[in-house]
Amino acid sequence: MTADVMAQSTDADKSPTTGSPAAATPDESTGTDNYTGAGKPLAANEIRGMRERIDEIDQAIIDLWLERSRLSREVGKTRMASGGTRLVLAREREIVERFRTALGPDGTQVALLLLRSGRGPL
Amino acid sequence: MTADVMAQSTDADKSPTTGSPAAATPDESTGTDNYTGAGKPLAANEIRGMRERIDEIDQAIIDLWLERSRLSREVGKTRMASGGTRLVLAREREIVERFRTALGPDGTQVALLLLRSGRGPL
Repeated sequence: MTADVMAQSTDADKSPTTGSPAAATPDESTGTDNYTGAGKPLAANEIRGMRERIDEIDQAIIDLWLERSRLSREVGKTRMASGGTRLVLAREREIVERFRTALGPDGTQVALLLLRSGRGPL
Repeated sequence: MTADVMAQSTDADKSPTTGSPAAATPDESTGTDNYTGAGKPLAANEIRGMRERIDEIDQAIIDLWLERSRLSREVGKTRMASGGTRLVLAREREIVERFRTALGPDGTQVALLLLRSGRGPL
């Protein structure tokens, strides 16, 4: 699905760059709020509130992702410096399984991306 | 790389199911700790400490992922109930861009998986 999502986008989808959400202007011809995509002002406000939390979550995920990546590289360095192996597949499997159990099939992909980011340049 | 990682695993990789890390036993023939993969006990201890934090991070990422998924579905429902659109591509693009900027090319994949989890059944 990945490429399709982006391919559907056009210039008309460009987000407001000056953009506080409050600055979004309703499309007068349809009554639709262009930024939230909501059909009514009340829904637009509700959506803005939820999006604020979503943005916080995204930032937290990014921060955790980067911290994990640094730690995981450190683990790999420590292990190799001690004469150990570069990877421990048993551990990687556990992690993939944890994400798959919690998030479903996409969890496998998330875990593999996470593990890859922790390996550093091969 | 995804399939390769798993294909390399064998039954010998199975993680200890009773497994507190302290229960890992060194392989006496090689001096290698089977669980951490470290070649020396000191490194093994250091690795265990870092892995504890990594495990916390993984759980936090999972929790945030699920919370975001619920919120995002709620946003979609609210928008559609108000007569708005099912998706807002401008918003999706912003999110993909945020992850790509922070995490590099894999960030795009992470964002697309995250967005998909927030769409619910199509």
